Amino acid sequence: MEQEYPSPLLEAAVARLSSLPGIGRRTALRLALHLLRRDVSEAVALGQAIMDLRRDIRYCSVCHNISDDEVCPICSSAGRDRSTVCVVENVRDVMSVERTGQYNGLYHVLGGVISPVDGIGPDMLEIDSLVERVRAGGIGEVILALPATMEGDTTDFYIYRRPEGVAGLRVTQLARGMAVGNDIEYTDELTLGRSLLQRTPFGV
Amino acid sequence: MEQEYPSPLLEAAVARLSSLPGIGRRTALRLALHLLRRDVSEAVALGQAIMDLRRDIRYCSVCHNISDDEVCPICSSAGRDRSTVCVVENVRDVMSVERTGQYNGLYHVLGGVISPVDGIGPDMLEIDSLVERVRAGGIGEVILALPATMEGDTTDFYIYRRPEGVAGLRVTQLARGMAVGNDIEYTDELTLGRSLLQRTPFGV
Repeated sequence: MEQEYPSPLLEAAVARLSSLPGIGRRTALRLALHLLRRDVSEAVALGQAIMDLRRDIRYCSVCHNISDDEVCPICSSAGRDRSTVCVVENVRDVMSVERTGQYNGLYHVLGGVISPVDGIGPDMLEIDSLVERVRAGGIGEVILALPATMEGDTTDFYIYRRPEGVAGLRVTQLARGMAVGNDIEYTDELTLGRSLLQRTPFGV
Repeated sequence: MEQEYPSPLLEAAVARLSSLPGIGRRTALRLALHLLRRDVSEAVALGQAIMDLRRDIRYCSVCHNISDDEVCPICSSAGRDRSTVCVVENVRDVMSVERTGQYNGLYHVLGGVISPVDGIGPDMLEIDSLVERVRAGGIGEVILALPATMEGDTTDFYIYRRPEGVAGLRVTQLARGMAVGNDIEYTDELTLGRSLLQRTPFGV
């Protein structure tokens, strides 16, 4: 038997591709062989896009969302409600909230949630900068839009209890309840219980 | 609502990554955000490996397997049986046969199989070069190791019937039969039928 791959170039590409999450060596090999069947310019463009992304990306100095400028388009937009800040875990969550079309305020990206198991404490997240933003004034409501998990709840509570923090402000949390389109019988009991306790007037 | 992605760099990386087979925009975004959390050197190495692979890869002039040299290590190996050629569809199949540890001959990579539906005719495959190799002499057996599909069978038959081709040679095909470890009841009837017709003496 010879070496597993017939070429060190292929070996290197497979090793790099399979270091990505959710991509094993079989998938990596499939991707590499796909690239070999395409035009050179396509592979070069992919490689370049990956390098450019990581080398040149910047983060908004206000909300810590990904941004190509010092301040992101959302934070610098004149059309958005500057008195409301939606606190999210990561950049993807900003995109999710934006896609709803139901929100016109600003964001604050924490970069994670508190998780003692994973060794992530509050000082590793953008919580201090959130408190500073709030203390600088002009903010009337903080919406906690963190995951509905133990870690998310812990982080919600930590932010809420910061003594110099959000006291005096309206602090809200995303509603927990049945997913739109779901059946009662397929809704888990914790969620169903919450949606009973937090039931809303019909027709509102 | 703002644009879907907060950065053209991110947009470009997602577009490029999602052009890969089996990678949709959601997965591409997950991969891009993963790269943003890693060291710059990691993203640069990935991008470079992709470009190098496509730009510098070469194919063996004899068997058309991927190779960093003019002739691949298998074709140039002194330790391999040069009288046997195993005909496979693609580079991955060479690796699969090599991994069995049961083969010590040479290969010939067709680059596909005949498929009128996909517009792939015999002239688009490395069949002429196979016939040339055979006519050059020194080959005693051609093993057809193409997929056990209609397209694979068609290609087998086409190669077998080439008038100036493999006549006079021993031409063999991979055995069809029950997969090792499988139950009778889970073996489809075509395969089970073939393994009955081609039953082998016990203990051999």
